[in-house]
Amino acid sequence: METNALLYTHEELEAEYAKLQEVAEKKGASTWQMRVKQQTPHCKFGEQGICCRICSMGPCRITAKAPRGICGCDAHGIVARNYLRFTLGGTAAHSDHGREICHTLHETSADGNYKVKDPEKLLKLAKEWEVETEGRDIYDVAHDVAYIGLMEYGKPFGTQRFLKRATKERQETWEKAEIAPRAIDREVATGMHMTHMGCSSLPEALIRQAFRSGLSDGWGGSMMGTEFSDILFGTPMPMDTEANLGCIDKDYVNIVVHGHDPSLSEMIVEYSQDKEMVELAKAAGAKGINIVGVCCTSNEVAMRHGIPMAGNFLQQENCVLTGAIEAVVVDVQCIFPALGPLSKCFHTKFITTSLIAQMPESNFVQFNVENAGENAKAIVKEAVENFKNRDQESVYIPQLKKKATVGYSCEGIVSRLDTVTNSQVDVTGTWQPLVDCITSGVLRGAVAMVGCNNPKVRADYAHVELMKKLLKNDIILVLSGCSAQAAAKAGLMCKEAKELCGDGLKRVCELADIPPVLHMGSCVDISRMMLLVNEVAKQWGIDVPQLPVVGCAPEWMSEKAVSIGNYVVSTGIDTFLGVIPYTEGSDVVTDLLTNGVKDWVGASFTFETDIEKLGDAMIETIEAKRTALGI
Amino acid sequence: METNALLYTHEELEAEYAKLQEVAEKKGASTWQMRVKQQTPHCKFGEQGICCRICSMGPCRITAKAPRGICGCDAHGIVARNYLRFTLGGTAAHSDHGREICHTLHETSADGNYKVKDPEKLLKLAKEWEVETEGRDIYDVAHDVAYIGLMEYGKPFGTQRFLKRATKERQETWEKAEIAPRAIDREVATGMHMTHMGCSSLPEALIRQAFRSGLSDGWGGSMMGTEFSDILFGTPMPMDTEANLGCIDKDYVNIVVHGHDPSLSEMIVEYSQDKEMVELAKAAGAKGINIVGVCCTSNEVAMRHGIPMAGNFLQQENCVLTGAIEAVVVDVQCIFPALGPLSKCFHTKFITTSLIAQMPESNFVQFNVENAGENAKAIVKEAVENFKNRDQESVYIPQLKKKATVGYSCEGIVSRLDTVTNSQVDVTGTWQPLVDCITSGVLRGAVAMVGCNNPKVRADYAHVELMKKLLKNDIILVLSGCSAQAAAKAGLMCKEAKELCGDGLKRVCELADIPPVLHMGSCVDISRMMLLVNEVAKQWGIDVPQLPVVGCAPEWMSEKAVSIGNYVVSTGIDTFLGVIPYTEGSDVVTDLLTNGVKDWVGASFTFETDIEKLGDAMIETIEAKRTALGI
Repeated sequence: METNALLYTHEELEAEYAKLQEVAEKKGASTWQMRVKQQTPHCKFGEQGICCRICSMGPCRITAKAPRGICGCDAHGIVARNYLRFTLGGTAAHSDHGREICHTLHETSADGNYKVKDPEKLLKLAKEWEVETEGRDIYDVAHDVAYIGLMEYGKPFGTQRFLKRATKERQETWEKAEIAPRAIDREVATGMHMTHMGCSSLPEALIRQAFRSGLSDGWGGSMMGTEFSDILFGTPMPMDTEANLGCIDKDYVNIVVHGHDPSLSEMIVEYSQDKEMVELAKAAGAKGINIVGVCCTSNEVAMRHGIPMAGNFLQQENCVLTGAIEAVVVDVQCIFPALGPLSKCFHTKFITTSLIAQMPESNFVQFNVENAGENAKAIVKEAVENFKNRDQESVYIPQLKKKATVGYSCEGIVSRLDTVTNSQVDVTGTWQPLVDCITSGVLRGAVAMVGCNNPKVRADYAHVELMKKLLKNDIILVLSGCSAQAAAKAGLMCKEAKELCGDGLKRVCELADIPPVLHMGSCVDISRMMLLVNEVAKQWGIDVPQLPVVGCAPEWMSEKAVSIGNYVVSTGIDTFLGVIPYTEGSDVVTDLLTNGVKDWVGASFTFETDIEKLGDAMIETIEAKRTALGI
Repeated sequence: METNALLYTHEELEAEYAKLQEVAEKKGASTWQMRVKQQTPHCKFGEQGICCRICSMGPCRITAKAPRGICGCDAHGIVARNYLRFTLGGTAAHSDHGREICHTLHETSADGNYKVKDPEKLLKLAKEWEVETEGRDIYDVAHDVAYIGLMEYGKPFGTQRFLKRATKERQETWEKAEIAPRAIDREVATGMHMTHMGCSSLPEALIRQAFRSGLSDGWGGSMMGTEFSDILFGTPMPMDTEANLGCIDKDYVNIVVHGHDPSLSEMIVEYSQDKEMVELAKAAGAKGINIVGVCCTSNEVAMRHGIPMAGNFLQQENCVLTGAIEAVVVDVQCIFPALGPLSKCFHTKFITTSLIAQMPESNFVQFNVENAGENAKAIVKEAVENFKNRDQESVYIPQLKKKATVGYSCEGIVSRLDTVTNSQVDVTGTWQPLVDCITSGVLRGAVAMVGCNNPKVRADYAHVELMKKLLKNDIILVLSGCSAQAAAKAGLMCKEAKELCGDGLKRVCELADIPPVLHMGSCVDISRMMLLVNEVAKQWGIDVPQLPVVGCAPEWMSEKAVSIGNYVVSTGIDTFLGVIPYTEGSDVVTDLLTNGVKDWVGASFTFETDIEKLGDAMIETIEAKRTALGI
């Protein structure tokens, strides 16, 4: 197909990645592809969620002959407990990330390592939280706002402040369903308590807590992570960058930043541009210092600085395998422990920086607000000094690279919508143009596509193929996390990708000068999507479940993804998963998640491993919602 | 042996319990004994801790051919992550129990369902926490203290207030080892984050967090649970009661209270003595209302009201199997989900009361501060009205019953120590008499024996046999939880049990008029033991690890037990476990727990399933500590 020339085919990409596998084999290095073979087949009890290790009487496993664990818990209770604990890992991870950002904001100062880069957003939030701003130093305001944010993790009474940002109907729904989240950490602790031996075994109760915990993530920890990151590092606005392994440059000192917390990567980016460091790199024979990103750290620095995206979750080892990486600098989450031994097969330094993510065979350089500048400089210097150890002869960098436009925060999207309003008659700064596009049918609806890679799915295939299908059907995509990088790597995130769209969406892309897949940021930035849909619903005068919008995580793998799924569904957005959670061992839990929860929140999950069917189901859901709205 | 006449033999007890198994078989009911057979053998991967379900790429299992999970995590990282998560379940459970008590204290009022019963203890704590008391209403003080307590769960800065109660050396040790716990819920959330996919895989980091989380339980949530329970319901003082199934009375309406939170059981006890209810019971043909306890709820009401103890963890089904129980009323933790279907085989009502512990096949009566009196009355009434449905013909109550003296809170012990001081020359209200007994060698040392039952150990056998062995060696025992009930059921908790002791301990028992095994309370009351050892160490002028004192949980099964073990070891007390945690799959983690952590905190674990060896090891440790002290 002619239009496909815009994109790499999966085969083109995989052929290049395969060459890196050859490098691995030659080096005797272990890669995820090899380990997947060793770990397959997986334990059926674990996959179905019917293995329980919650006390030391067991482990217990449910079979036809052993229908209950030693305590008497049945498959439904075990599956639901495991599902809740899985959620809690995700809630804790996202929210603790958000907390770190709160702490960073709390330590900002005019002459410190971290400063307020978006005072307007800070003042807006201060007003929302009723913090006095009049005549006050911006840093005093920042510290008060940060303190209130920190209290959202542990306040003894009340629910999350950001819930008030949702539609009135959503807020009432959450109250009625008893899932309006209290302090974030409390929801994690409550969930751990409920799943303790001899506590809850009623699926409804456990799933309800999973949803409440999820909401404390999406409308609590994650949303604070996003807001405070914007205040600290600037709110993303549309910006050009590039994606895939070709961003690694043989002539430069290459540093991979990987993980999630922008507090680290922002500093690394800053010091990679430091004159002294650049001179040092040149003295070492390099043309300069090249930062590339992996996973959500990549999204953070791409959205704010246009730093190229080397890849997503299942690309992390490939970066090292190029032989051209001087340092992989990581903070938290989704970092393969495999990077330790893998980097030892090359000259690459594997540098861990967070007390939360300590790994064997890494250099640990503890990073905090006080030493951030100093330590970032030391890390960049270490990478530069490591350039001389690179074996240029054996470097192999696949020449894969696509242009991408990123930076579509809510503010970024509204700025584009403003360009299509008639400034003579319309109010600017609203979501009305988007509502108009949807009601008129130029856009049929939207899909929020998010989540990881998972070796259970051909890497990136589901992301990319689903996007192509949806675009053809005039469904616009908002992306985050590894899904965004899958799109960017394939070429879907450039403006020319409008050619892959149906006529309506193509026209919208042209008018607003946007790509048809909008990069909204990292995983915590799914909170941006929650705000977007709630703002659109308010503008429209309807509640979220009525919107022709669905969520999709076709290749998810982490606990965070389940926490996200729970809050997206709780927000009233039907959510489609291409990997089935560890729930198949209970028809009760499966029915609850895919059907029953609709009675609580007006949305539910669909689990479907067949990508074609998954895509069809999303389109049907969107069209059904349109029909219900009479549009 | 003549002295053994004091005690039931295991065979005597088991012969009676076996008759209840016959009842179960006849009724077609499932019991733990049957389910253990169905669940044996257990999964080896799970038992060794080398199964990982933390993300949905797996589950992964470590074998010789698959030495790493898909992410690259090795056995050591997987085992340590699982160990940390296991701990977190326990920390959350204990601490959330403590939080509930804080909330109850926060809602006390002079004319409400809950009142302050120990104002002296409240005022002491208010002073410790610098709450103004002068001229204030006791309930205003209570609410301020409770609020501060609640903030210990979520405060954004600082460490736990109660750490200051430890010896100066302990506090320094915790600071240096970086395990001084911050807000309790934060430690749970941090641990969940650290164990998320792609975060920590370094065993040292994970075990350190397990210890920090444990400390937030023992010196945070549990200690608050104990303190606030005493303030609300009275500080336990020595009191007589009885133990074992013979406490169930065929002629009475029998209500089992089971679980952990005294907020429920206190109210049930109160309304069981309500004149209207007693009259109702008599009208129904019963002689009255008989409350019996199971698990830690039993410890709570035995310590404060002398309510008889029907049994411990593995006795819960036996109670129902007598056919003489009108209602099993439960709150949280260690409640078999099996009680739902089991109670359906009898007339027994299974009544759940907490949002934390919701179970299938139960009647749910939500219990909270506002409706506590009303709902307790309704529950008691339901039980009374159920008396008519009992099939008296088929009732079988094993006539097993032993006397027990309970109620040895720290205050209770000091009150006994005061009786042996010379009031002319000694200061009263101190631990000096105990120090003198130990230094003189009349007592060789002390063992804190705690924890659950576990079908992997012959029920109660390890508890009782170890106690007998230690008593003979002049080692005094302080007990809590199911260990205390094992002792009481066998007969070890009556004062006559002094006959089983060596000469020194026997003399101490006679002088102080105490049994040789001192019931200190429920699982959260292990915090009392922590205070005891720290107070003794301070009085002595040494640090805790020097004391000839060890901890032991010979039959533990729950996550709480591991959280406890971590804080007991962190407090400097060598701890001996008769059931091995799911850690054997990593020699690194095993070595860390049984050896390496000594460098951090001056104590470590011993895992030993051979009870004789476990007892010998404890005696050796105690004697070695005496030698080191030169006593």
